[in-house]
Amino acid sequence: MPQSTRSATLDAGPAGPGAGPDPTAAELTEARRRLATPERLRSFFAPRSVALVGASDSSGWGQFIVASLATSGFTGPLRPVHPTRPTAFDRPTVPTLRDLDEPVDLAYVLAPTRAVESVLEDAAAAGIRNAIVLASGYGDGGGEQGRAAEASLVRKAVELDITLLGPNCLGYVNAAASVAPFGLGIVPPLRRGPLGIVLQSGALTSNVLAFARAHQVGISLLTSMGNEAVITTADVVEHLIEDDDTEVIGLFLESVRDAPRFTRLAARALERGKPIVALKVGRTEAGQRTALAHTGALAGDDAVVDAAFRQFGVIRVGSLEQLLITSGLLTSGQVPKGRRVGVVTASGGACDIIADRSTDEGVRIVDFAEATTERLKAVLPPFAAAHNPLDVTGIILAERGSAQAGLGDMALEAVVDDPGIDFVFNMLALPAVEPPDPSTIERRVAQIATSTERSPVPIVNFTATCSDLSPYAQSLLDRNGLHVLAGIEFGLTAIGQALRWQETRALRPRPPSTEQAPAPAGIPSGPWSEARSRDLVAASGVPVVPAELVTDADAAVAAADRVAGPVALKICSAAITHKSDVGGVALGVHGERAVREAFERVRAAGRAVSDDIEGVLVSPMRAPATELFVGVTVDPSFGPVLAVGLGGVFIEVLEDVSLRLLPVDATEVRRMLGELRGAAVLRGPRGTRPADLDRVAEVVARVAAAAGGLGAALQTLEINPLRVDGDSVEALDVLVVAQDGKAVSAVSAVSAVSAVSDPDPAGS
Amino acid sequence: MPQSTRSATLDAGPAGPGAGPDPTAAELTEARRRLATPERLRSFFAPRSVALVGASDSSGWGQFIVASLATSGFTGPLRPVHPTRPTAFDRPTVPTLRDLDEPVDLAYVLAPTRAVESVLEDAAAAGIRNAIVLASGYGDGGGEQGRAAEASLVRKAVELDITLLGPNCLGYVNAAASVAPFGLGIVPPLRRGPLGIVLQSGALTSNVLAFARAHQVGISLLTSMGNEAVITTADVVEHLIEDDDTEVIGLFLESVRDAPRFTRLAARALERGKPIVALKVGRTEAGQRTALAHTGALAGDDAVVDAAFRQFGVIRVGSLEQLLITSGLLTSGQVPKGRRVGVVTASGGACDIIADRSTDEGVRIVDFAEATTERLKAVLPPFAAAHNPLDVTGIILAERGSAQAGLGDMALEAVVDDPGIDFVFNMLALPAVEPPDPSTIERRVAQIATSTERSPVPIVNFTATCSDLSPYAQSLLDRNGLHVLAGIEFGLTAIGQALRWQETRALRPRPPSTEQAPAPAGIPSGPWSEARSRDLVAASGVPVVPAELVTDADAAVAAADRVAGPVALKICSAAITHKSDVGGVALGVHGERAVREAFERVRAAGRAVSDDIEGVLVSPMRAPATELFVGVTVDPSFGPVLAVGLGGVFIEVLEDVSLRLLPVDATEVRRMLGELRGAAVLRGPRGTRPADLDRVAEVVARVAAAAGGLGAALQTLEINPLRVDGDSVEALDVLVVAQDGKAVSAVSAVSAVSAVSDPDPAGS
Repeated sequence: MPQSTRSATLDAGPAGPGAGPDPTAAELTEARRRLATPERLRSFFAPRSVALVGASDSSGWGQFIVASLATSGFTGPLRPVHPTRPTAFDRPTVPTLRDLDEPVDLAYVLAPTRAVESVLEDAAAAGIRNAIVLASGYGDGGGEQGRAAEASLVRKAVELDITLLGPNCLGYVNAAASVAPFGLGIVPPLRRGPLGIVLQSGALTSNVLAFARAHQVGISLLTSMGNEAVITTADVVEHLIEDDDTEVIGLFLESVRDAPRFTRLAARALERGKPIVALKVGRTEAGQRTALAHTGALAGDDAVVDAAFRQFGVIRVGSLEQLLITSGLLTSGQVPKGRRVGVVTASGGACDIIADRSTDEGVRIVDFAEATTERLKAVLPPFAAAHNPLDVTGIILAERGSAQAGLGDMALEAVVDDPGIDFVFNMLALPAVEPPDPSTIERRVAQIATSTERSPVPIVNFTATCSDLSPYAQSLLDRNGLHVLAGIEFGLTAIGQALRWQETRALRPRPPSTEQAPAPAGIPSGPWSEARSRDLVAASGVPVVPAELVTDADAAVAAADRVAGPVALKICSAAITHKSDVGGVALGVHGERAVREAFERVRAAGRAVSDDIEGVLVSPMRAPATELFVGVTVDPSFGPVLAVGLGGVFIEVLEDVSLRLLPVDATEVRRMLGELRGAAVLRGPRGTRPADLDRVAEVVARVAAAAGGLGAALQTLEINPLRVDGDSVEALDVLVVAQDGKAVSAVSAVSAVSAVSDPDPAGS
Repeated sequence: MPQSTRSATLDAGPAGPGAGPDPTAAELTEARRRLATPERLRSFFAPRSVALVGASDSSGWGQFIVASLATSGFTGPLRPVHPTRPTAFDRPTVPTLRDLDEPVDLAYVLAPTRAVESVLEDAAAAGIRNAIVLASGYGDGGGEQGRAAEASLVRKAVELDITLLGPNCLGYVNAAASVAPFGLGIVPPLRRGPLGIVLQSGALTSNVLAFARAHQVGISLLTSMGNEAVITTADVVEHLIEDDDTEVIGLFLESVRDAPRFTRLAARALERGKPIVALKVGRTEAGQRTALAHTGALAGDDAVVDAAFRQFGVIRVGSLEQLLITSGLLTSGQVPKGRRVGVVTASGGACDIIADRSTDEGVRIVDFAEATTERLKAVLPPFAAAHNPLDVTGIILAERGSAQAGLGDMALEAVVDDPGIDFVFNMLALPAVEPPDPSTIERRVAQIATSTERSPVPIVNFTATCSDLSPYAQSLLDRNGLHVLAGIEFGLTAIGQALRWQETRALRPRPPSTEQAPAPAGIPSGPWSEARSRDLVAASGVPVVPAELVTDADAAVAAADRVAGPVALKICSAAITHKSDVGGVALGVHGERAVREAFERVRAAGRAVSDDIEGVLVSPMRAPATELFVGVTVDPSFGPVLAVGLGGVFIEVLEDVSLRLLPVDATEVRRMLGELRGAAVLRGPRGTRPADLDRVAEVVARVAAAAGGLGAALQTLEINPLRVDGDSVEALDVLVVAQDGKAVSAVSAVSAVSAVSDPDPAGS
């Protein structure tokens, strides 16, 4: 992994874990936030006039910006500003922004780093409230000095009330508003559409624009974020959620900063029905945090990001191509609502590939209804099979030049009417250039448009491979209002993602709370004894195996007598979290003498480690059954995270856990159980008793609630194992570790630090 | 899954499992093979003259063929044949092939199905020995009648000594020999290169050609196989292995027919250093065969195909794009030989994506050497980090028009010299059209070519996304002898595949034998008793837990006495394969009385099921340890398959097994163990004793050898469990099931049937 070239100095300020937030930093954060409200951003992204500060004709950046503004259709005033040259870009310059006769809506600052703050002062003096800063060498690799310069820049922006994008940023392309103050070339035409894109990378903007152009994906706003000194990615996402020109939000993320805010925005976007599609990098760099209990190590950074995305419907993609192809499907107006597909192609080989890929994505190629088959038989050649997926065969090639509805059209019409499908996956071949006689393809495409209009289900068109759509093909599709997905491979992934997004939306996940609950009074920090831990979860309604806390051998024998069958004895001490490791556990103990011996042995083992012994817990032994691991830990960015897994090799060898941010309800827990690779174990393999999944989910949700109840004091709550035998669900071992909830405004302060790639060691 | 539109009537003949091969069918197969030898195919695919039979000017197919021949650069005689029209395609016709003044090298038969055989007779009479048959409605959906027609066609071809491609086939494109008798349009230019492609699909040929054209992938021969009545896919693969114009073989496979021959060819291609890249569909349709033992159900069709591919270096891809991009890399002359990469880009975002994808593919982004870092620091801007992956930053954009070596070039030069890398992954941005001033990009590309020439390691160039290479970009690259991979996503997959291919090649896997060993004499068919099963594997040097076979309680007690500690008693009978299920097992038995009781109970349980009881086996109990499952079963297509997995949930819930065709050696078994998802269990998690993997591999290889020794009599050999505790490896339970090895010429006869989608029920 590369060290990120972005960074944020402000967040690296004095607020570190365990330290109180610096009031100035907190105020600055708040002030910065006021510069980037949706209202401020609405005007920031739609300037009617632009000044270009510090660029001469020979500047590559300046040339790009002027050209991009033209390509975007910008017709407002463009005012070059240069201290010495009289003209630039065929326009007269003014020496400084103060010399403008009237303020512009946006200043694009090309000045070198050392001059930027003075340009901002000029801007403020001229009544300009929006600026883009291109200069780099701030937090982005400028070292100590660069970070200081960035902090200073933020204070300046706040002081001057200037909304600032950057530094180290190329600007943005607002296709919807026809303005593109953007420091890279845009190959025309710039396609307008409902996709808003935010990139934590400058250079990838060209790749994104080029791929979008080649695949008929129109954008509303595209912005390169730079160092996010003032305007952050979350600010732009919030703006896009409110933006009427945007229906889908695409993201390239190097890191999720201010994770709680991000998840709240994700939940809001889901609720509003605006899908977020994110290429989040750093998948494989998941740093494993040390933690007292197991949970911490399992919930690596990226696994938590992934869980948060899954929980709140953020569609995670693995490639730039998929980012745009999935977004393209979601903006196409033809989004499948269910998993049953009717496939229409002119290639048996393509049908085979589609069948495999559909299975991968949980898309079901169902049998056609009798009536559909009959209609197909009437139009297909005798050797073609009238089944799903449908290959209308190469005969379609013989139809060239026919003016009537062809075989492909009639087949599509028949499939569209099938009552058992949720959408049609329709393969198209599109020409690279306009053919000498375009009538066949023109008629074919027009007929698909007609079918689409009258079809009760969406028709998703696709080509066989991910190949650029030629200008002729795009014009043909545009004239008919059709969208085409780029290839079977990416196309079916996009369909799977769109379906999962809708299913997540239907679950209406509870958004994370904006404020973390304070720690209840009187909670000791550090690990708790098992007895205390048991009481906490039992109070939330979690069934716990009976246990008596005894302090002498006679009481142990009496407790064992009250249990029918053998017992377990476990040392009970806040100082001993790994009881077995120190010899503090005796299992399957039966008979007075054995109980007495075990009590003495276990207590002696405990005393060898610590003076702080509460006693020994005596519990009935349980027969072997399915064991779950249920843990809640606190992610430094996202806050409390629930981990659920199967015990034994599943958790120890396969690290097979499902994660969610709190709060969760039983419905969400059931979904988690279904995600486990070992889920079949719960369904009762080989004649064992299937688990009552509703009951398991209910109990796990209560465990999560118990953890949530600790508020800021929560560090870890772990039940290992949670024994499941049919509808009997019982915690056999409980561990709580608390932290001093008063010391930190927990998540917010900690997550602010975690967003920084190179925090100032002196500040923590 | 669609029912395949291809089929083969001949293979559906009377040879079924358990039945002897029909001599006529065997002779026919042999005769057919003689028509498709590499020598015959060399001339089949390079005709100097072509006749087009049965096409008039108005035939779409005919137009395509004539155009394709022209596009391929074919300049030899093209002779149209038509019974009634005097001219076609601006050439005079003859009424039949018999009327030609001299024989052509190839007849392309467009005649309808009913006329095809008579056209072949004309061809033979005219001295023509090669034919392509377009007509469909044979095995491809023509029902009973179609299959009969196809069988008749084959007999006719054999009788007339005509090498025939099809029926239901579009023909081929031989770019190397400049001849393309091909029934679809070829968009020019047709790029020549070292990739030979064989497709069990007609319609996909256009998609393959279009994608290859857009991505600078040149082909030697592309052929659509049709029904494979005479020439089969394996025949063409064999031809391409011998073909000097072909360096890489690309396949689209609906099914692997004659699996043993296919694997032998794969082994030969691997040995010769010609990679085979295959898009094999039907991944998810893996039919689960019923079998007496566990192994059969685990080794689903597709899992065996996958194992065979992995074993013999066939690179399996999942999409058409990947088929061509991976093939393109392998033909580029810049194939990585090791896993350590130096990455050069002008985008930090791209670096992030590359880092994730490299980890996925096992490609290691290593630290640069000190000297490399110093050289980079000297050329990079101060705020850029001189580390791997390298982002030379957007400054590269400011270099437009410079005539000297630019930043990107100098950075590439520095990285190429790094002593710690095996290859360079170099990102390029290529223009869609020739820029007004092409000097910068021309110089840049020329400089990469210079670096490539002098570089001690391969330089793999790639673009950010899978986007078509413009004609200008292709010309630029071609002039400089460079190849570019289509995007980070597909590009890194291709690199991972190329690396695995080389690693497999280095292992020199033993090719499957051409002949199956006969069954040893005197082998009973059906399940064997455990005692007999144990003797078989023990004779091959497999360590087996000691056991005494006893037939009365006194002997059981005496046997138990000779064991220190508790014993296991198991019923021993050829009639009882699931001993536990019938109560035929007693575990952890200790003391005379308990042994006596257990003996009586176990024997009684056995007698309740069968009269055929050999006795009871008395063995020492073993402490719990890691348990493996080792099984050999016979796949109807591929023959004997070894399955190795971990016991318990790994095999029962996760179906986590690794498969290989026999024979295997210990090296290959070690590789299998490493493929298991639960491999960490063998490495000794949580302080358990790590398994001696060399010892395990040696024992498993002996198990495989024992199974192989049964020759045609092998049905199943299963050790479950094989107990592993450090270097102690011991079989605890052995089951052999034999079949009557004399009745079938096993694999070949059975696999011939399995290749047919709709075998004739009367014939089996």
